[in-house]
Amino acid sequence: MDKILMTPGPTMVPEEVKRISGLQPFHHRTPEFYELFSNLNKNLKKIFKTKNEVLTLTSSGTGGMEAVVANLFSSKDKVLVASIGNFGERFYNIAISYGLDAELCDFGWGQAVDLNILENKLKNDNYKALFVTHNETSTGVTNNIREIAQTANKYNTPVIVDAVSSLGGIPLEMDEWGLDAVVTCSQKCLMSPPGLSFVALSDRAWNMAEKSNLPKFYFDLKKARQGVLKAKPDTPNTPAVSTIMAVKKATDMLLEKGMDNVYKNQALYGKRVREYIKSLGLELFPEESIASDLITAVKVPENYNASKIISYMSEKHNVLITGGQGPLKGKIIRIGHMGYVAEEMLEKTFEALRDALSSM
Amino acid sequence: MDKILMTPGPTMVPEEVKRISGLQPFHHRTPEFYELFSNLNKNLKKIFKTKNEVLTLTSSGTGGMEAVVANLFSSKDKVLVASIGNFGERFYNIAISYGLDAELCDFGWGQAVDLNILENKLKNDNYKALFVTHNETSTGVTNNIREIAQTANKYNTPVIVDAVSSLGGIPLEMDEWGLDAVVTCSQKCLMSPPGLSFVALSDRAWNMAEKSNLPKFYFDLKKARQGVLKAKPDTPNTPAVSTIMAVKKATDMLLEKGMDNVYKNQALYGKRVREYIKSLGLELFPEESIASDLITAVKVPENYNASKIISYMSEKHNVLITGGQGPLKGKIIRIGHMGYVAEEMLEKTFEALRDALSSM
Repeated sequence: MDKILMTPGPTMVPEEVKRISGLQPFHHRTPEFYELFSNLNKNLKKIFKTKNEVLTLTSSGTGGMEAVVANLFSSKDKVLVASIGNFGERFYNIAISYGLDAELCDFGWGQAVDLNILENKLKNDNYKALFVTHNETSTGVTNNIREIAQTANKYNTPVIVDAVSSLGGIPLEMDEWGLDAVVTCSQKCLMSPPGLSFVALSDRAWNMAEKSNLPKFYFDLKKARQGVLKAKPDTPNTPAVSTIMAVKKATDMLLEKGMDNVYKNQALYGKRVREYIKSLGLELFPEESIASDLITAVKVPENYNASKIISYMSEKHNVLITGGQGPLKGKIIRIGHMGYVAEEMLEKTFEALRDALSSM
Repeated sequence: MDKILMTPGPTMVPEEVKRISGLQPFHHRTPEFYELFSNLNKNLKKIFKTKNEVLTLTSSGTGGMEAVVANLFSSKDKVLVASIGNFGERFYNIAISYGLDAELCDFGWGQAVDLNILENKLKNDNYKALFVTHNETSTGVTNNIREIAQTANKYNTPVIVDAVSSLGGIPLEMDEWGLDAVVTCSQKCLMSPPGLSFVALSDRAWNMAEKSNLPKFYFDLKKARQGVLKAKPDTPNTPAVSTIMAVKKATDMLLEKGMDNVYKNQALYGKRVREYIKSLGLELFPEESIASDLITAVKVPENYNASKIISYMSEKHNVLITGGQGPLKGKIIRIGHMGYVAEEMLEKTFEALRDALSSM
């Protein structure tokens, strides 16, 4: 039996999506592929809630984040990275690798972005962009991207959003909220195997791309856009065709259900997990008001060992959760409930956790 | 029924490899993954014929080529690109994108590298490296990499090999031949879906990597090597796990057969395709002495239309071949026979081509 992945990705892939992943991949310069790719793009635009094209890159989410840095900026550009954990720091490290003058504004692991602090920063300095994580899987915190974007837009600061773990699971309205770059990937809320990232840019961001002097070839977003806009839409290089076939199917499934229903379900899973955690007498790691509906971080009670809880659940119950990263190693456990979550998976996870704790 | 892909990739994926591609992907920080990834690395080292680590990147082959450029060089480094077609030019374009002082030595579409011209170049100038394509799919020509490397090594010029379409299909001995970087991908001779590239570096190349000043994060090969060398080997970012599972199986199959037998079969396919082409009264595009055993380029006879031949074969016989790229568009057709080729696939291709020609 498959291990039940209650992790921040890869997540469980529905049967029908797995079946498609296992088909012979199409050749990527054929009518079959053009139709598939065109339909995938239509689906993604509905999920990103954007009129602009969504570009498909064969890479993990980090590759998509790097693509945004390499395409929109020039060396020494001053940017602000609002970080609330591991993936905020990753965005900072990518910016630094490319020679940007990046400033890390660390709100603390377990906190959300504080709008007042952010506004003071934006008011007093002139940043080419603000980088921010929508859903920080390392801490189980969701930022209020809508309010963050409103604040940034007051100061005409473009907003670059890492929506790697959030898009398709919790509300995000790219155009309506005034977001300039949004990045996600295949293996989280989009219920597919890993291997693809997806990037959309606003008109303002496309203008920034005209001025960028950073090197890029594989991650050249202008070339990717040219591909999507062709009468026979394709990608500049051979893409992960099987994964494109999978994500097309998975996004069909999400859209059939309706995104509002998907968000409602996801919120319900979040609530149920938090309630169960509290019913066991455990404590949530972040404040409940900023707790993610996609992944729940739980403090490891004194005298318990995080790794032992995790291995017990994996070995005895076949349920995989994860531990803390960086400074939170050993201090928290994290239960992912993003993407494809069946009722039975939640129940098995609850039972596995209860059993693990009572066995220790 | 699946279209029969007689193309330069994606190629046909064997049933057992497809089955594995359609399984639930492992989580990439679990004992199951560590074992899988470690075994994949062992397989790849046997196929690259190298003692050094083979690094797995989630990207197309072009991403692997870019990784080599970004990791080994610095801006303004003078390099020589020996080009015999589209993919030689691509290597040149990547080098230029990264600000290298790249010189394109164009031997002509349809030619192989001329060793005397190459030696003169290397003798009279001081290049940081020579870039060369092993098997040029755009023209159906295979370079003699062993002799090219011997020539380059006389002048201490490191050799960077695009083996994207050759590795695992025709002989290549990375260490024995003195190659410094070798790049391949999952969807050609390795009989798997697209989505992964593989890169190995010589000790000399790893020393070059210490001095490189070009930006890299996602394609940082040092980080990838650290991952492979861990007690629990993994990748810096979430890899295309399903495709890793697939390539592990496909490389098991190749190694079970024995690489020498694989090469022999592949050479036989090449010979059979060329013989059949000649028996139809058609002309090979390159000289037969440099013709690839992995892909056959055929001149389109006067009064025939390449696109029509290709669509007829695809629509009437369900066999997909491809046309010419760039200056060869309309002038040649290309029949791929790399990776997984069953007897029946060859026969259907022959019959489809014969029928297409006689119908016109």
